[in-house]
Amino acid sequence: MDNNRPLILLTNDDGVQAKGINELVKILSPSYDILVMAPNGARSGTACGITAHDPLWFKVISETANVKICECSGTPVDCVKLALEVFTARRPDLIVSGINHGDNASVSVHYSGTMGAVMEGCMKGVPSIGFSLADFDADADFSATANHVSEIVRKVLDTGLPQGVCLNVNFPQNKGMGYVGAKVCRMGQGAWTNEWYAAEHPKGQRYYWLVGKFTNIEPHMSDTDTWALENNYVAITPIQVDMTAYHVLDKIKHFEHL
Amino acid sequence: MDNNRPLILLTNDDGVQAKGINELVKILSPSYDILVMAPNGARSGTACGITAHDPLWFKVISETANVKICECSGTPVDCVKLALEVFTARRPDLIVSGINHGDNASVSVHYSGTMGAVMEGCMKGVPSIGFSLADFDADADFSATANHVSEIVRKVLDTGLPQGVCLNVNFPQNKGMGYVGAKVCRMGQGAWTNEWYAAEHPKGQRYYWLVGKFTNIEPHMSDTDTWALENNYVAITPIQVDMTAYHVLDKIKHFEHL
Repeated sequence: MDNNRPLILLTNDDGVQAKGINELVKILSPSYDILVMAPNGARSGTACGITAHDPLWFKVISETANVKICECSGTPVDCVKLALEVFTARRPDLIVSGINHGDNASVSVHYSGTMGAVMEGCMKGVPSIGFSLADFDADADFSATANHVSEIVRKVLDTGLPQGVCLNVNFPQNKGMGYVGAKVCRMGQGAWTNEWYAAEHPKGQRYYWLVGKFTNIEPHMSDTDTWALENNYVAITPIQVDMTAYHVLDKIKHFEHL
Repeated sequence: MDNNRPLILLTNDDGVQAKGINELVKILSPSYDILVMAPNGARSGTACGITAHDPLWFKVISETANVKICECSGTPVDCVKLALEVFTARRPDLIVSGINHGDNASVSVHYSGTMGAVMEGCMKGVPSIGFSLADFDADADFSATANHVSEIVRKVLDTGLPQGVCLNVNFPQNKGMGYVGAKVCRMGQGAWTNEWYAAEHPKGQRYYWLVGKFTNIEPHMSDTDTWALENNYVAITPIQVDMTAYHVLDKIKHFEHL
């Protein structure tokens, strides 16, 4: 690798073989050194999950002058933790997770393994960005994302991000007409409902598949990531590690008197 | 069940057999109707993880007049989602997760399955509380927690919690002298380091166990949950669903101009 170029650690939750992460390699490897440490299969919905009860392994599956690709048996967060602690010769200048197949707007941030990896990078003090495309297709069309990915990565490498803050970037599905533009947003309020599809095992036991439908519960607010996606904007949402509800600290002070 | 008593949904990430959740049943069942939907084994570190790729099942493992206990093959978040959607006769008045064996202060909130269930309850609009004890022992001494659990539950049932806000309550390890008191806190800043223990498989492959040491990076600040635990206070931290870094929205506005 060329130590004059920034080093970017890539990961995702769709697995090292997914189209989305390989798009990132294509977009970023001409300008940066790339280390991929990604799960060896799908880890969708693993959030900030870590592997507490099993040993983990990883292996290098390909290596060129400036792109090293490893697959790992753990979660996206495990991947970031392992890469940062095992490859100590160079600390990554940036962590990029994605491009996820499916959006991670609104409350989906909480469930997303893509964003779990981003939170982990942020907790470790490395500027971190998650990219997601609102298209679940395994062969989704990522072509409209390339310029935005390049520019957002360049800006974050140039100026950094505030401590404890990372970016959640969501792209609308590519409908062939490009995006209206980019929009800095807050995380929209929304709810997943009708989340279970019940079926019957041949031996009689009932089982359940997690499905569900997302509802934007503030559809007329134009400052949310959900609104941006619905209106063909690239949604850029700053997300923070500190989850304290500061506005409530005083209101619950009476809990101290039991 | 007695419809005149509030209904509390209990879950955890240590599994339905763990001592901590059975302490909750003991403490709360004299006053409330109890529905337990908890994982059928340990799910530590599963955060807000959901089961995206496998079917789930649950079964009722015991039932008395006012305590119904179910075990489920999924994560703590799956447990909450399933319980809310399957048992529709009564919506729980409160969701309580824990008592976790091990604290969930500072950034551990992000990894915690206990707190994942609490976040899920909060996202579904049900007042939700996580309880954790800073003692990993499977036979940890929960006796000092009972009064605090009862009182916090009573207060939340009486007054509710603001929309999108839940409680993360951490108890110091019981050293036999009681607690100094309860303290409303913010989530402390901290870092996990030295997270991997490497070993060699008999066939030669290197593998890794996730271990790590937590460091409080602001040890002199007395308003954090970490400080409270270290000083023998019960730490009560309000946690919010909205992860937007509002203080950064203006500063990153230039990302709109690519």
